[in-house]
Amino acid sequence: MRQKALTLAVAALTWGVLGSAGANQKLIEMSKKDTNWVMPTKDYSATHYSRLAQINTENVKNLQVAWTFSTGVLNGHEGGPLVVNGTMYIHTPFPNIVYALDLDDPSKIKWEYKPKQNPAARAVACCDVVNRGVAYAPAEGRHPAKIFLGQLDGHLVALNAETGEEIWKMEACDIRVGATITQAPFVVKDKVLVGCSGAELGVRGYVTAFNIHDGKMEWRAFATGPDKDIRLSPKFNEKTPQYGRFGLGLKTWEGDAWKIGGGTNWGWYAYDPALDLIYYGSGNPAPWNETMRPGDNKWTMTIWARDPDDGMALFGYQKTPHDEWDYAGVNWMVLTEQKINGKKTKLLTHPDRNGIIYTLNRETGELIRADKLDETVNWVKYVDLKTGQPVRDPEYATRMDHQSKNICPSAMGYHNQGVDSYDPEKELFFLGLNHICMDWEPFMLPYRAGQFFVGATLNMYPGPKGVMGFVRAYDAKTGQFKWSVPEKFSVWGGTLATKGNLVFYGTLDGWIKALDSRNGKLLWKFKLPSGVIGHPITYEHNGKQYVAIYYGVGGWPGVGLVFDLKDPSAGLGAVGAFKELARYTKMGGGVMVFALPDET
Amino acid sequence: MRQKALTLAVAALTWGVLGSAGANQKLIEMSKKDTNWVMPTKDYSATHYSRLAQINTENVKNLQVAWTFSTGVLNGHEGGPLVVNGTMYIHTPFPNIVYALDLDDPSKIKWEYKPKQNPAARAVACCDVVNRGVAYAPAEGRHPAKIFLGQLDGHLVALNAETGEEIWKMEACDIRVGATITQAPFVVKDKVLVGCSGAELGVRGYVTAFNIHDGKMEWRAFATGPDKDIRLSPKFNEKTPQYGRFGLGLKTWEGDAWKIGGGTNWGWYAYDPALDLIYYGSGNPAPWNETMRPGDNKWTMTIWARDPDDGMALFGYQKTPHDEWDYAGVNWMVLTEQKINGKKTKLLTHPDRNGIIYTLNRETGELIRADKLDETVNWVKYVDLKTGQPVRDPEYATRMDHQSKNICPSAMGYHNQGVDSYDPEKELFFLGLNHICMDWEPFMLPYRAGQFFVGATLNMYPGPKGVMGFVRAYDAKTGQFKWSVPEKFSVWGGTLATKGNLVFYGTLDGWIKALDSRNGKLLWKFKLPSGVIGHPITYEHNGKQYVAIYYGVGGWPGVGLVFDLKDPSAGLGAVGAFKELARYTKMGGGVMVFALPDET
Repeated sequence: MRQKALTLAVAALTWGVLGSAGANQKLIEMSKKDTNWVMPTKDYSATHYSRLAQINTENVKNLQVAWTFSTGVLNGHEGGPLVVNGTMYIHTPFPNIVYALDLDDPSKIKWEYKPKQNPAARAVACCDVVNRGVAYAPAEGRHPAKIFLGQLDGHLVALNAETGEEIWKMEACDIRVGATITQAPFVVKDKVLVGCSGAELGVRGYVTAFNIHDGKMEWRAFATGPDKDIRLSPKFNEKTPQYGRFGLGLKTWEGDAWKIGGGTNWGWYAYDPALDLIYYGSGNPAPWNETMRPGDNKWTMTIWARDPDDGMALFGYQKTPHDEWDYAGVNWMVLTEQKINGKKTKLLTHPDRNGIIYTLNRETGELIRADKLDETVNWVKYVDLKTGQPVRDPEYATRMDHQSKNICPSAMGYHNQGVDSYDPEKELFFLGLNHICMDWEPFMLPYRAGQFFVGATLNMYPGPKGVMGFVRAYDAKTGQFKWSVPEKFSVWGGTLATKGNLVFYGTLDGWIKALDSRNGKLLWKFKLPSGVIGHPITYEHNGKQYVAIYYGVGGWPGVGLVFDLKDPSAGLGAVGAFKELARYTKMGGGVMVFALPDET
Repeated sequence: MRQKALTLAVAALTWGVLGSAGANQKLIEMSKKDTNWVMPTKDYSATHYSRLAQINTENVKNLQVAWTFSTGVLNGHEGGPLVVNGTMYIHTPFPNIVYALDLDDPSKIKWEYKPKQNPAARAVACCDVVNRGVAYAPAEGRHPAKIFLGQLDGHLVALNAETGEEIWKMEACDIRVGATITQAPFVVKDKVLVGCSGAELGVRGYVTAFNIHDGKMEWRAFATGPDKDIRLSPKFNEKTPQYGRFGLGLKTWEGDAWKIGGGTNWGWYAYDPALDLIYYGSGNPAPWNETMRPGDNKWTMTIWARDPDDGMALFGYQKTPHDEWDYAGVNWMVLTEQKINGKKTKLLTHPDRNGIIYTLNRETGELIRADKLDETVNWVKYVDLKTGQPVRDPEYATRMDHQSKNICPSAMGYHNQGVDSYDPEKELFFLGLNHICMDWEPFMLPYRAGQFFVGATLNMYPGPKGVMGFVRAYDAKTGQFKWSVPEKFSVWGGTLATKGNLVFYGTLDGWIKALDSRNGKLLWKFKLPSGVIGHPITYEHNGKQYVAIYYGVGGWPGVGLVFDLKDPSAGLGAVGAFKELARYTKMGGGVMVFALPDET
């Protein structure tokens, strides 16, 4: 890692005038301006926190709709819009249209881009045809500012941010094997990173880095297979050898199973510019049926720290070795600095789908805390902080010779793809949670490229507390929840925290709500046209603070609505859990923007 | 007509306790309560006017979104919701779902009805798959209150208004010949009336009356053919013999052309309980190519006055004999009482697609006024009030041997399907107008059942005034326009007038606007998620006034957006006229409800 300064300087010279380093610095600066929301996670630390406080606990009750925009697409709208220099960039699920609206007059479309795609992509998307967002890269010398869009059919496309014109287009994922893009790309330095979805079809997961200017592939790092493919640095897990080091991407699999072994990543990235490390999670092993893939199945379900320049991994921590429940480990990772044992420490906190919220030292990978998101988590008794190993309860294992019932959390996890928030002043994480459990019946099936490769029938239902979701304020220093607010349905999309002591979030049944972030008190709510599976954002424009959110129910929890499914075990079990949802909301996609009235 | 009192009393006895007459009276009373909006036109006079004034010219600027509901359907949303006894009934385009929402808690769906339909209906709908609304009939003895829905596939269905359960279902229109239902049914006495769409496929038009309780067909009145089919009373046009009387449904056609001659009705009804007459219009003759159907083509393009009990016609006035421009005559008809020559007179006013606004004596059918909606109307020089005949300009005829350019209005008319409003205090009509002209190229084609039968290629474009629409206040006593407000796009959906001195309307590019009805001054506007082709309504609930409107661009003006058409002559010419529309709005269907903030 430490030799990199020189390499970087040389690379920069070839771009002229400190090229990519300068652009990266610009992006960091833009992410700190509250007129912008330049990346889905708000900033490289993924705090999803805004220092705007014009809207606060006193006046939030007066919030009203400022303007709206229907995207013309009905499927589930995950993610959120970007706001850059007075332009809002709105993305849609398949067909993955991008709209640019000038915030000075959002009633007219500045530009729109509708990709030509292979419609076959629709058939291999596991759970609706969602997309989690676009990425922005600032202008750099003769290179215009760009918007990056991942298409469901596996192509990554770079658009001119001013005009919407296509600059380059590259295949990142191969839909012939069922690999699609649903992830928001991530810009770091002169690269744009994107992973594939498709572990439900036996896709072998990887992340690819492309040069932002010309789309040249720079590196690709797999989750499984030979160390070379996984791109393990010689220092890999040097500080944390208990996590395992070399050769395990092959050795923890039977035969060639790693080739169809999943570990895709379709969640969120974070980046520490000082350490020059990116962080993200690889997902569940394939197939879901654990009997078909003995071993730890490394490095699925892993928190990765990699060098963005060459993709080499400094550490990897596998949270759920040999997953038996589809606890895909791709969730939000947030970088904070907090005092641990009296010492300011660089941390990474990650509420995992498996029901555990992990906090690591992000310089070394050492595990610091691992708390249950809810005491009803039952597949694991506790996580051994020394070894990093979950200590399991065999009662909730899903092996073929065992009837497995009332497993908590369900395959959806107690936390899924939502982007949550961290308030650095309060040192609190605001978590949108699922509270759904399941029965699990495995079955054997052959692998066929491009076909679903799951091997389990699920029955999902509300968890034992009579609701399907919560919003909770978590303190990583103590492991305590400061407050907890129940929600009828899962809080799927995540939360937004502001300096106005507010936490905003959307609900599956279509409310946007604002809580007092100090105590969880509900201060305001508004019924949107359709349910929410994305995350709210906030920005200032012409001196006024706005809150924006996508409506558009769908995704995995809304799959019953999207495809009009009735069988409770359909939609990988989601239909049973969310059978009530259709009584509260219908499909419909768009963005809704709120502000205080001018008089207030 | 005058013998009817006895007949009615006898009929009533068979229902017990003055059955249908009582129900009709109840509906009239409900239509007068401003907590309700029991029929699309607000009342039997079709005034589309509310006496509510809580929202007025002073405070309308504070209007804000109270709640919203996405219907889950993207196609164009014509018409508007009904509000009856605290329940809102929302309809959608195909697949023609009906939602009932309890206004005490509209965040949960009270019931929903999604019909099973023949999907073939989609292919024969001329211009998107719109539906203009549902009808309500109050409870009557052992018969529950009902909601009537016309399905695109030609079936009329009666639902229990409380539960959404299907009570009966009848075929009203035969989709095998291309006949669909897009019209809002109309309840009068113990009958529900509905017509068919499909003149663009050579459908022979008629209206059918069904018994509201059991769906039994009571009568059917055609627009063309033998007098018996057309149901001409012996007194037909007795007072207005200059309009023609008997035998003309055959004699004004060549051979059997009347059998495929159009004259469908898919617009709006009005009813005068004192005269016991219903009023509606029959539409354009088929095919559009006039050379293929010599003669006056009676009784297409006709304002009808019929007895609702037996369907017999008292008078019929053909506005556009031998139509050459698709000026379908189905538009809004509004019943007023105004002083004509110093004498209070029962009037019918009708802004026709042909660019003329007609006022008749609705007792006798006599024509009183016929004014141009805009001085740029050029196919006709004037209407002879004595004969009722339009005096044409042959330059704008569309015969095969003549190049016809710059015809105003276009086939869309200067007024189309919008429900407009009449303020009885100001005695003003508030008209939403199109301002689109066209070139027309006819061609010959054979008739094939269930196939499009048009025979003309159209090029439509904005009219000479640089805008595509207006809202105008018209005084039928003087023929003057009190004020006129230009709109970038056609005002397709119609207007709502209130005692608060306001006129509300939606625009194709997605604004809802409120004007001062005294002078046309813009007082408030709000950008909806998608463009508007329906009409606003207003109601009071728990002491608070609300304004509701459908958003959901589509229909004929939005056909380019709906089907992603690019060829300017596509969509029967609509694509050329509305090529700009896609820069302003996208599809998306729902209802948006506005109110004043609680503080105001």
